[in-house]
Amino acid sequence: MKRPARLAFAILGAAVLTPVLSHAQLFTLTKDQMIEYTAQNPFERFPDGRPKVPDELIERARGMSSEEVLAILPGKGFRNQYEDGFRILHPDKKLVGRAFTLQFMPLRPDLDGVVNAKAQAAGLGRMYNQTAIDMLQPGDVLVVDLFGQAEGGTIVGDNLFYYIMKATKGAGLVVDGAIRDLEGISGMDMPAYFRRAHPSAISNVIISGINIPVRIGKATVMPGDLVFGDSEGVYFIPPALVQQVVDNADVIHIHDEWTRMKFDEGKYKSREIYGTPTDPALKKEYDEYLKKRLEEIRKKNPK
Amino acid sequence: MKRPARLAFAILGAAVLTPVLSHAQLFTLTKDQMIEYTAQNPFERFPDGRPKVPDELIERARGMSSEEVLAILPGKGFRNQYEDGFRILHPDKKLVGRAFTLQFMPLRPDLDGVVNAKAQAAGLGRMYNQTAIDMLQPGDVLVVDLFGQAEGGTIVGDNLFYYIMKATKGAGLVVDGAIRDLEGISGMDMPAYFRRAHPSAISNVIISGINIPVRIGKATVMPGDLVFGDSEGVYFIPPALVQQVVDNADVIHIHDEWTRMKFDEGKYKSREIYGTPTDPALKKEYDEYLKKRLEEIRKKNPK
Amino acid sequence: MKRPARLAFAILGAAVLTPVLSHAQLFTLTKDQMIEYTAQNPFERFPDGRPKVPDELIERARGMSSEEVLAILPGKGFRNQYEDGFRILHPDKKLVGRAFTLQFMPLRPDLDGVVNAKAQAAGLGRMYNQTAIDMLQPGDVLVVDLFGQAEGGTIVGDNLFYYIMKATKGAGLVVDGAIRDLEGISGMDMPAYFRRAHPSAISNVIISGINIPVRIGKATVMPGDLVFGDSEGVYFIPPALVQQVVDNADVIHIHDEWTRMKFDEGKYKSREIYGTPTDPALKKEYDEYLKKRLEEIRKKNPK
Amino acid sequence: MKRPARLAFAILGAAVLTPVLSHAQLFTLTKDQMIEYTAQNPFERFPDGRPKVPDELIERARGMSSEEVLAILPGKGFRNQYEDGFRILHPDKKLVGRAFTLQFMPLRPDLDGVVNAKAQAAGLGRMYNQTAIDMLQPGDVLVVDLFGQAEGGTIVGDNLFYYIMKATKGAGLVVDGAIRDLEGISGMDMPAYFRRAHPSAISNVIISGINIPVRIGKATVMPGDLVFGDSEGVYFIPPALVQQVVDNADVIHIHDEWTRMKFDEGKYKSREIYGTPTDPALKKEYDEYLKKRLEEIRKKNPK
Amino acid sequence: MKRPARLAFAILGAAVLTPVLSHAQLFTLTKDQMIEYTAQNPFERFPDGRPKVPDELIERARGMSSEEVLAILPGKGFRNQYEDGFRILHPDKKLVGRAFTLQFMPLRPDLDGVVNAKAQAAGLGRMYNQTAIDMLQPGDVLVVDLFGQAEGGTIVGDNLFYYIMKATKGAGLVVDGAIRDLEGISGMDMPAYFRRAHPSAISNVIISGINIPVRIGKATVMPGDLVFGDSEGVYFIPPALVQQVVDNADVIHIHDEWTRMKFDEGKYKSREIYGTPTDPALKKEYDEYLKKRLEEIRKKNPK
Amino acid sequence: MKRPARLAFAILGAAVLTPVLSHAQLFTLTKDQMIEYTAQNPFERFPDGRPKVPDELIERARGMSSEEVLAILPGKGFRNQYEDGFRILHPDKKLVGRAFTLQFMPLRPDLDGVVNAKAQAAGLGRMYNQTAIDMLQPGDVLVVDLFGQAEGGTIVGDNLFYYIMKATKGAGLVVDGAIRDLEGISGMDMPAYFRRAHPSAISNVIISGINIPVRIGKATVMPGDLVFGDSEGVYFIPPALVQQVVDNADVIHIHDEWTRMKFDEGKYKSREIYGTPTDPALKKEYDEYLKKRLEEIRKKNPK
Repeated sequence: MKRPARLAFAILGAAVLTPVLSHAQLFTLTKDQMIEYTAQNPFERFPDGRPKVPDELIERARGMSSEEVLAILPGKGFRNQYEDGFRILHPDKKLVGRAFTLQFMPLRPDLDGVVNAKAQAAGLGRMYNQTAIDMLQPGDVLVVDLFGQAEGGTIVGDNLFYYIMKATKGAGLVVDGAIRDLEGISGMDMPAYFRRAHPSAISNVIISGINIPVRIGKATVMPGDLVFGDSEGVYFIPPALVQQVVDNADVIHIHDEWTRMKFDEGKYKSREIYGTPTDPALKKEYDEYLKKRLEEIRKKNPK
Repeated sequence: MKRPARLAFAILGAAVLTPVLSHAQLFTLTKDQMIEYTAQNPFERFPDGRPKVPDELIERARGMSSEEVLAILPGKGFRNQYEDGFRILHPDKKLVGRAFTLQFMPLRPDLDGVVNAKAQAAGLGRMYNQTAIDMLQPGDVLVVDLFGQAEGGTIVGDNLFYYIMKATKGAGLVVDGAIRDLEGISGMDMPAYFRRAHPSAISNVIISGINIPVRIGKATVMPGDLVFGDSEGVYFIPPALVQQVVDNADVIHIHDEWTRMKFDEGKYKSREIYGTPTDPALKKEYDEYLKKRLEEIRKKNPK
Repeated sequence: MKRPARLAFAILGAAVLTPVLSHAQLFTLTKDQMIEYTAQNPFERFPDGRPKVPDELIERARGMSSEEVLAILPGKGFRNQYEDGFRILHPDKKLVGRAFTLQFMPLRPDLDGVVNAKAQAAGLGRMYNQTAIDMLQPGDVLVVDLFGQAEGGTIVGDNLFYYIMKATKGAGLVVDGAIRDLEGISGMDMPAYFRRAHPSAISNVIISGINIPVRIGKATVMPGDLVFGDSEGVYFIPPALVQQVVDNADVIHIHDEWTRMKFDEGKYKSREIYGTPTDPALKKEYDEYLKKRLEEIRKKNPK
Repeated sequence: MKRPARLAFAILGAAVLTPVLSHAQLFTLTKDQMIEYTAQNPFERFPDGRPKVPDELIERARGMSSEEVLAILPGKGFRNQYEDGFRILHPDKKLVGRAFTLQFMPLRPDLDGVVNAKAQAAGLGRMYNQTAIDMLQPGDVLVVDLFGQAEGGTIVGDNLFYYIMKATKGAGLVVDGAIRDLEGISGMDMPAYFRRAHPSAISNVIISGINIPVRIGKATVMPGDLVFGDSEGVYFIPPALVQQVVDNADVIHIHDEWTRMKFDEGKYKSREIYGTPTDPALKKEYDEYLKKRLEEIRKKNPK
Repeated sequence: MKRPARLAFAILGAAVLTPVLSHAQLFTLTKDQMIEYTAQNPFERFPDGRPKVPDELIERARGMSSEEVLAILPGKGFRNQYEDGFRILHPDKKLVGRAFTLQFMPLRPDLDGVVNAKAQAAGLGRMYNQTAIDMLQPGDVLVVDLFGQAEGGTIVGDNLFYYIMKATKGAGLVVDGAIRDLEGISGMDMPAYFRRAHPSAISNVIISGINIPVRIGKATVMPGDLVFGDSEGVYFIPPALVQQVVDNADVIHIHDEWTRMKFDEGKYKSREIYGTPTDPALKKEYDEYLKKRLEEIRKKNPK
Repeated sequence: MKRPARLAFAILGAAVLTPVLSHAQLFTLTKDQMIEYTAQNPFERFPDGRPKVPDELIERARGMSSEEVLAILPGKGFRNQYEDGFRILHPDKKLVGRAFTLQFMPLRPDLDGVVNAKAQAAGLGRMYNQTAIDMLQPGDVLVVDLFGQAEGGTIVGDNLFYYIMKATKGAGLVVDGAIRDLEGISGMDMPAYFRRAHPSAISNVIISGINIPVRIGKATVMPGDLVFGDSEGVYFIPPALVQQVVDNADVIHIHDEWTRMKFDEGKYKSREIYGTPTDPALKKEYDEYLKKRLEEIRKKNPK
């Protein structure tokens, strides 16, 4: 779909992209700030300081479910990392990747004017959704706060969706807002979570932040979070907890295997088996099964 | 999915299960009460007095639609037996079975304490969702009032869903509340109707009744009702009306067959054929067709 | 307003009222059950076992606010005792009294028939909303679960509202449902909390319980709870916690008095004074003020 | 599904159908009025004056998306021609056809009586939903204002849906209201857009207009509009703009082809290519591609 | 408030105002049609055929409540004459008057153009909300279908509200849409029922009908209906039923008087008195009281 | 009301307050940034660069209505400066003052930990809602984004509301979130706009920005905007447009005076007078009246 009205939306903060204009940023984090606010990150970082959860953990995370993230996060005090109520493009396909965050606000001409004057002075053109989209890396999930807007809150249509798919190697998109060209997008193999589909182009908004903390519904998202989506909703997992979440998911999978094997025997009431076997002999059987299976899995996926 | 927090939810009324504690029940029906309040039931009963609609009628009911239940119930004064607005796990698979009802209320520690003290004294452990689930029989549909709660209102995850599927021979689940582990459950072959999916475990609730009258939205459900769900919603059919509903559905099916045959001829306006042919000759043709086809069906399904 | 259609609604459970029919009750609590399930009640009881919070505490509670109830209840594990979203008849008039609970369900003719047959046999007429209303005592607040129904979910119009006002000495009404005759009721001096006003008469419902635990939105209410309503919402306070709530409210009132006196001096930033003075000398001043004022109050209101 | 209660709904305006009763119409347009109010129609008309968008354009429109309609209409001042929020029967199948409009209002016995008396006097029977349905032509999309009603707002069940499919050659149905027999309808190959599915039969409504301007949500629909529905929503396109919309869609398709080819090369940032190439050489390349491809398409689809 | 953008909204159907253009009306009723469709009207009519409920009955209706209208209408088959969910300007002031109806639809430039061309040709200017407002008579209540629109759906601000108040002698306004200048309007002594207040001027709409049947929510309103609003909602009463409604209201008032007198005696349970006294002696006492009081009232208000 | 749980909520960004920590700010604007982004401000500024609309204009603005703001802003391209849907504490009392903005996000322990470590290192305590509240100046309106949260989203109770009233000289509060202690607050003479009242204390949130651009519903608010609230909603007016808005309001007031005088004469239809008199003589009369009255007003309020 051709975007018919290129100037229909306003843009803010071209300065964000160039160090010489960093004081004008409305808003981003400097590399130092990024490192400081994500200090618990145990992994490598991108050149701009954004945490880089390793590809290997991203792959392992594809086998998880939302429940397995919830098994860890609230216990660590992270109670605001989940959001649902999205329309899901491919409910059967997991969304996993590193958060690249983008925040919009309703257009205000005075802010818009200041930012564009600065951008022009710096030899940049206008800044708009494509400015941020062109910064995406393989494995990035674009996470956008468009405050639930339907008309005019359409972050991309099928052409830019296609571009994101190419640029991120199919990682994905989460938008508290809308997409357009639903038909065209439906045939593309990238996960996407959105509130609405609407035929309008993005308009009447400005970019107020790139790679800053953003709010998606009731969740606070940091750049570099591991974004995990399944058919229920989306979790934003702090890098420091990713290893633990993924390892614990293995335990849960084995627990489920064993539980159903026992249910299949047809000899037990559910509460004799699940969550923890009440009979000590059964408990021992389970513990041994768990140990053996974990070893098998760890051999396949050495840390 | 492993239920990570076994004690995260409270339980009430272990006494329900044993006659010696019947005065403490909060709430169930004694066998006599069950029989009295379902006195119009024309069929056999379970040992606890719950009506047992015959398997043969359950099978025949799989061929019906909601409209065919509605053709009978309101005319008999039963105007509050239908509820919709559910998320449906397998819209293409009919839900048919006998209601096993379960009522929850928000947790209250004083009630919870009394009930658990009694349960401990009786040598029972705590009572919780699995206590009821372990009572299910083949052909039962678990009907749960969790007052529409999403977070903490998750009656089962995939492990207990699997157990219910085994125990009821795949009959089904209706919950005015939530389920968790949607991904895992989606692959299982049992119908389920729920309001939301949420990753949280069941919590902050108590069981206030087992096999009592419960309200599911705008419908009043009795234990032993025939639960019927299609892609629109769920009907709770009193046993006394099941035979009539099922028999009348045959007539409607034949009416539809004939109507479409006539539409296919392309000679008639819709109002000449449907609902009742206006031309006496056509009416006679229809009546004869109905009679012949009914006889064929009755031969195949003798009462 | 004359109730034009006396037989427009159905009634269930006349047996509730007479001991000889107690097995048919759908549902109430026997005196023993009532005592058992409200065992923590420290006060006297009504003849039917319902806790009777003393009049003196009811009067003192009129000086409280919802926040002062919240200061105690969740800390004791009671997190489900508050509900809001009501339309409030007299927002400036506190609602305080003892809960008399009433539960309705959508009408089901088979249940209705059984109950009325039993009621007739016992020489009682039909049972309906007036049956329960005629049981109210001075100081009772009628708490009704009509599942949020507007049309047909109107527990009373102005005539029965007037009767309740007379019978309870103006204590009040909470209905998760509707009232009718809003104009007539507006002029009457009794607090009322309801979801909607609708001109229809109550219809298409049955009484499924009198003085049993009921759910009002997200709160579980026991008969005998202290019902407290202000301009925000309604709290249902277990009798065992009433004394503590009321005493603690005195402390909060004094704290507020002192805080504002200090604010009026204009010398302090808010965080130097509130919640706890940071300066030890100020803290001491506050502690002495609190002690002195508490003594004054306790003299006026000896326990 | 047999419509069990033929007289359950009321009917108005049989006179609409016959010139002799034209003064009694509540409401329709005379042929002259139809021509006057659709004066910009560039195409042939039906005998009653309704614009008849040519079959060839209907076929070409099947290749469009909502975004391609939006690319033209608002720029021509038509900002109220789109509505969404429908449940869509076959999201993968486009809806394209000529609007046949139908307006209902809540039943009023006095209006109903007048109209039926007139209809009887004219030798017609009662008028109801089938009266309008029997007027449908091949290529018509039935567009119905049933004011979002679920219960009783069910324009058709599976039998009449089948009849419409036959009569319109599968063109389609848009109803701001409900359908019934969802299961039966799901298997039929005609697009349908509706708000809800409900088992009830149509009732408690009267027909207040046939082929008059109707409001569907926020859109104003004229008889003869080209109705276009995709997986997002429905557009009602004035005949005068159909050719331009369809032609422009070809341009957009070519633009998308070219854009993705360039994205596939992996050499460009998105803003270098999309919406308009920034490099003059690329722009030239695009312009030539567009010209060549348009010629190819025009050869295949000569006007 | 000055309407800043006089041309911001479009207008349709100037022809409505002059008989010579009646064929162009989109829509109104001719005098003959008006008389035919309100044939049951027992009262005089306005020159355009609209029923004119007598002033004397309007005055007596001020003493009624919604419940007293409901006591009659549904029993006569009029079940769709009530609507609520309005914001009410003066809840303590009854709304009573004769319906003058006005229907809007979302703007469509092609319709707008045709109508305005005709209006210009007839020597009229553009037609817009003031065209209809200038037709109001003393005692008229303006009833407007603006399909619930807030922004742009503002039928009047304070200046035109003032004008309506003068023109109708303070009868009132009902709009399924919005008003603006809430502050200014709040000080004016005319009842008004609206969905929202919004500062925008009316825009993006056309007038599609004057004094035709209109739908206000779930109610069908005819020109000339007696509009009755109290603090609950609004009833639209067919003229043929006004006398009966008003007379019956007297009976209900007397019933209420007597009921409360008896309640005040404190000797009776509610069900002994209300709705009908169960004791024959009491019943007789009531019947005599009713007869006497009715005579007194009838003397004051002879028909 | 005593805030019972001082540590129940987390705080972020103590660094905001001291220039030495400015790199850690998450987020505020430096003085230079503030001046740059509000470059169009024609008035003086606070020491931190925030625009200071003069007291004289604030006083004159009290006589305006929302409609009079709307008469100017959209025409200047500011279409996103209005928000409604608030619960209004004192609908009869205008809200006028300078915006002091505050942004919260859901609590995230990792962010919270970093910020508090920095704050401790700088010798500051924790930062929380009172930190910002203690920065308020006379004439400031506190504008808070608490993302509509009810439970835990309570920016203040009655004690801090009292403090704000003292500190701002009663200017006011706008919160896209909740307040607590509604009863206590209701008696205080300061305007407040909020979404809900809830008894809980603020919790589970962090401060993510002080005096940055914030979004309140669909409006973008800058620090220093003139906040204007009436009984409809709230406008956030850029300083550069304040003078024009206030001056134009005088013209509208005079226009209204004159219009109603003419309506009172009873000689004119509304469209002859309003919006602009159609008769040249009347137009002249109006123009002269406007000129004379403006002169009178300007004498009273010289710029």
